Formats: sequence, structure tokens, C-alpha cells
Amino acid sequence: MGPDEPATLLTVARTAGVSKTTASDALRGSGRVSAETKARVLAAAAALGYVPNGSARHLRRASTGTIGLHVPEVLTRSVYYMAFVFGVVQGAADNDYDVTLITSGRRTPRVDGLVLGDPMADDPLVARLMGAGLPTVTCERFPGAGQADGVVLSQHAETVGALMDHLSASGASRPALIVAGDASDWAAAVHGGFRDWCARHDLEPLVRTVPFDAPADEVRRAARELLALRPEIDALVCGPAGAAAGIGPLLREEGRVPGRDLLLASCVDSQAMQLADPPITSIDLRPREAGVRCAELLFDLLAGRARPGAERVHPIELIVRDSTRRA
Amino acid sequence: MGPDEPATLLTVARTAGVSKTTASDALRGSGRVSAETKARVLAAAAALGYVPNGSARHLRRASTGTIGLHVPEVLTRSVYYMAFVFGVVQGAADNDYDVTLITSGRRTPRVDGLVLGDPMADDPLVARLMGAGLPTVTCERFPGAGQADGVVLSQHAETVGALMDHLSASGASRPALIVAGDASDWAAAVHGGFRDWCARHDLEPLVRTVPFDAPADEVRRAARELLALRPEIDALVCGPAGAAAGIGPLLREEGRVPGRDLLLASCVDSQAMQLADPPITSIDLRPREAGVRCAELLFDLLAGRARPGAERVHPIELIVRDSTRRA
Repeated sequence: MGPDEPATLLTVARTAGVSKTTASDALRGSGRVSAETKARVLAAAAALGYVPNGSARHLRRASTGTIGLHVPEVLTRSVYYMAFVFGVVQGAADNDYDVTLITSGRRTPRVDGLVLGDPMADDPLVARLMGAGLPTVTCERFPGAGQADGVVLSQHAETVGALMDHLSASGASRPALIVAGDASDWAAAVHGGFRDWCARHDLEPLVRTVPFDAPADEVRRAARELLALRPEIDALVCGPAGAAAGIGPLLREEGRVPGRDLLLASCVDSQAMQLADPPITSIDLRPREAGVRCAELLFDLLAGRARPGAERVHPIELIVRDSTRRA
Repeated sequence: MGPDEPATLLTVARTAGVSKTTASDALRGSGRVSAETKARVLAAAAALGYVPNGSARHLRRASTGTIGLHVPEVLTRSVYYMAFVFGVVQGAADNDYDVTLITSGRRTPRVDGLVLGDPMADDPLVARLMGAGLPTVTCERFPGAGQADGVVLSQHAETVGALMDHLSASGASRPALIVAGDASDWAAAVHGGFRDWCARHDLEPLVRTVPFDAPADEVRRAARELLALRPEIDALVCGPAGAAAGIGPLLREEGRVPGRDLLLASCVDSQAMQLADPPITSIDLRPREAGVRCAELLFDLLAGRARPGAERVHPIELIVRDSTRRA
């Protein structure tokens, strides 16, 4: 095969040491091919730069035209997940695919591949989907056994460290964190980033854990208890999305001015953070772009443009607002 | 058949004058059954109170476990449609079903039935889905040829009339409307409600039409032009979702105080309307509940609990805020 001669399915199959049918099945992600064989074929296709050119139309006809998407159950209450879902929908539409939102877990969905947003170690539906033998991309790593074919991840721990540096520069000396348990990779990274920063600064890590799907008033209650127990706290970082917006009014009730008596920050930006009084310093997770990126990686895997095991970094950003500008 | 004896598939088939297979296909919505036959079978099932009891598990296995959902292309920019989509997802999850968001139109989706939100007369994908032979529910009527098996609708024209009465009571004498063209039933109803009210009050209807998917700045530009052309306008009603929030700043630029020099109202409520300065009087379309209701009607049709041709009214509500409280 000369350098200008495109790789064929047969070349891919030979390189991977499988039959042409198996190679085709593996590339389409639709056959009964073991994960190991699939990985070998996809790796061969990627190494050879195989593009299913002439057969693209055929592959397209054979595909379901749909990718599956699963996100945690808080989906319908979460602005973050809504934006993520519509990012995946956009990324799929760009590839002429529909998206099935998987909530029921009744059966293995008829889809070409899967995107799992924040897959939880303790979610039985996630465990089943991870084992469904379909090309799969996760947003953040799966904290359970096994890994997806592709992972889109962000530097949460590092960004929480940058947030802590900023709070410290704004004069905070006793920061505290409210965070979900470690069943999601994201919450674990936020938690770890905070603990690491505290260790580096010889501070006892003041952490209060809440359920991943805790509604805003439950987080507010946790904040109230934490602040009553440790009145010396002068900066509060909220992990759960949206929760920080409810803390300002709580502080005012107790005669403290948010942004002056207590610095306030959120690990998840949203319109509510921008519109709060004062506006709340937040980490912009850019959920819509994360969704687009997950879909893109899945289509790259399906087309052999990415190898199994691919990890792509999705950039996130600390946005400083008045809730932490005391200086 | 005694009154306590449940109807069987055979009774339904005999009543409808079709074979048992055809009746089964019609009830499952999966066979190649004409719309007319399907309607007859569903009507017979509804009249007989047929519940696929013993065979429910079988039907379930035979079903795809998925319903399809299509909404206009503005979906991913629209808070309204996002909420609607998640209402449908919730209604489907309550019935142990997944939802496929149909955007590509590549093929007839493998689903048990369809929900079409605001189906547009000029959307070729909607036309194809309306003719796909699947049980279908629309949110608002389809303004093209044919009707869906079920329709969830709201009293938009009447509610716009109530809004106009309120504006008049607040002192407005020259109201104007910015609205999308009549390709959607909703926009046509808003438009019609406004014109009817103007006719009843002997007023020239001042209407400016914008594309259904016009972004906020295009609507703002239309408002600027309309107000420059007709400076006597003292109340402005915005049809397109979100657009009214951009009009307040525009008025201030021109030295007019929104809510005093010009009353401002939106036909679609959202957080942006609640948070605007002043908060903007709006019609709360309760999109999430509309989505749930559409899914419920579809499952009622699939189970024979509703007859084809069913129409259900989804209540909406005028919410008066400071943007129209001048008295």
C-alpha cells in the first residue's frame, strides 16, 4: 500500500488479525464483537488512517442513526445537565444523528454508541450501559470498574486549587467546602482539589458532604449548620450546582454580608450565579461545549478517527465576581 | 360479555371489524395499518375499555420502549423548548420509556409513537413525521394538512385577549404586537387574539412580523423600527420567547421608562422576565407541564385509554408584573 493509497477495510482487518466481517462489525459498533477485538480493530483503523469512504453510505444505512445519552437522575432539575444534553444533541445533529435520552434502563437501546454524563459508580443503569458492548464516551471518568472507549474530562481539582488561591488572596483564612460524595468523578475531583490545597496550606479541611442530588434547600441547611458549628469560616465553596445562590439570603438573615463577612463561590456557574446579589464567583464548566465534545469524540471513535482509550480535555474557567472581591 | 368481564383483543377486533393481528398491530402502533383502521381499532378499544392486561408484558416486549420527540429547530436556544423536552422525558420515564430527540430526519425512527411540539406547516421533517403512520400527539394543532391522533392545546388567543384587557385597564390606548408568522399554531393564535381584540376595540392592529427563530437582537431591531415609525405606541406585546427582556434597555437608551412611558409584556414567561428590571408581565405557558401532558396523552392513545382525535386543554396563565402596572 503506497502512502497515497487509502487504507481499505481488508487492510484494517488484516492488521487487526480478524475477518473483514468482524472488522466491519467492530467499526460499526453493531456486531457481537468483544471489547478487546473492537479495540484492536479501532486501533488498526486509526493507525492506518482508515476512512470508510466508499462505504460510508453503506455504513450509514446500516447504522441506527441514533446515539444514546444518559445523565444522572437530577437531569430535569439541573440547568447544567440540560445544557450538556443539548450540546450532545447539537453534536449529534452535526453528524446527522438523533439522540435517545436513556432513563428507563428497560433494555439495551438500539443506538450506535453511548455518551454517559458524570457516570456514577453506584448507578446500576450506568453499570449496565458500560457493559453493553457499545462504543461509549463518558464525560469525566467512570469511577467504577472499567473505562469507556473515550473520556472527555476537565481539570476540576486544579481549577478548585486556583479558586482557593484566589480566596486566599482575597483574605480568606478559614475556607470550607460543601460537596457531594465521591461517587461521581467530578465531585471527587472537587473534594480532592480542596483537600490537597488545604494540606499544602496546613489547614484543616472543613468539608460537609451532601447527596449528589440534594435540592437547594438541603444544601442551604447544610451551610447553616456548618457555619453555626464553625463561626470562624470566612469563605464557603459550594459544589452542588445552583446551591450558592441560596446562601447569600441565608447569610443576610444572620446579619452577615456575603462578599464581605463571608466570601462565597460556586463550583458550577449558571445564570443564577451571574444574577445573584452580589454576583457569585464560579467555575464555568461550559456544559454545552462539553456535550458537543463528547458527541464529537464518540463519532470520531465510530469512524475510526480516534482510538479507544482516547482522553480529551475540555477547558473550564474560573470567573471571579463580587462575592469574593473583598481585598 | 358481562359488565365485569374485561374486553379481549378479539372483542376489540370484532367490534372494529378487523382481524386480531390487525387490531394488535393498530394497538401497538407498530404495524402497517392505515390511519383509518387504526382510528377504528383505537375507538373500539376505548369504547370497550380494553386494557391489554395479560398481554401487557408481551406488548411491552414488542414495543421499542421509546417515543420520538420533535420540536422546532430553535430548540437548543429556547428555554421554553428545553423545559418542554424535559417534561416529555419525565412523562415518558413515568411510563418506563426513553425519548429519542429527532433532529436529523434521516429515517423513520424506531419508536412507539411521536410527540411534535409546535409542528410548523412549513417544516418538511414534520410533514414526514405526520405521515409516518405512528401514533402522534402534537402540542398545538398542526397547521398543515391532516391532524395528529391527539392534540394538547392552550387558549392562547383568549389569554392574549385577557392581556390586552389588562393593558387597556393600565391606560394603554395604542398597543402593538411583535409576533412570528402564522406557520405555527401558537403564533397564529397570538396574532389572531391580538387582531380580534383590536377589532373589538376599533383599533388599527399594529403588528410587526419576525421569523419564528429570530434571535433576540433581531426582535429588538424590529421593536426599535416599529417604535420609531409609530411613536404613539404605548404598549408593546412581544410574541417571541425571551425577546421582551431586551426591549427595556432599548427603551432606556431612547429616554423612555419601561413600565411607565411604554407598557411591556411577553407572550412567553421565563426566568429572564421575572428578573428583568422592571419584571415583565408574561403569559406562563408552563412548558414542562405541557410536555408531561403530551407524553401522557400519547401513552393513553397507545394503551387505548384515549381515542384518536382526543384534544386536551393545557392551562396557561397571565402573570401581571411591574412592567404593566402603571395605573
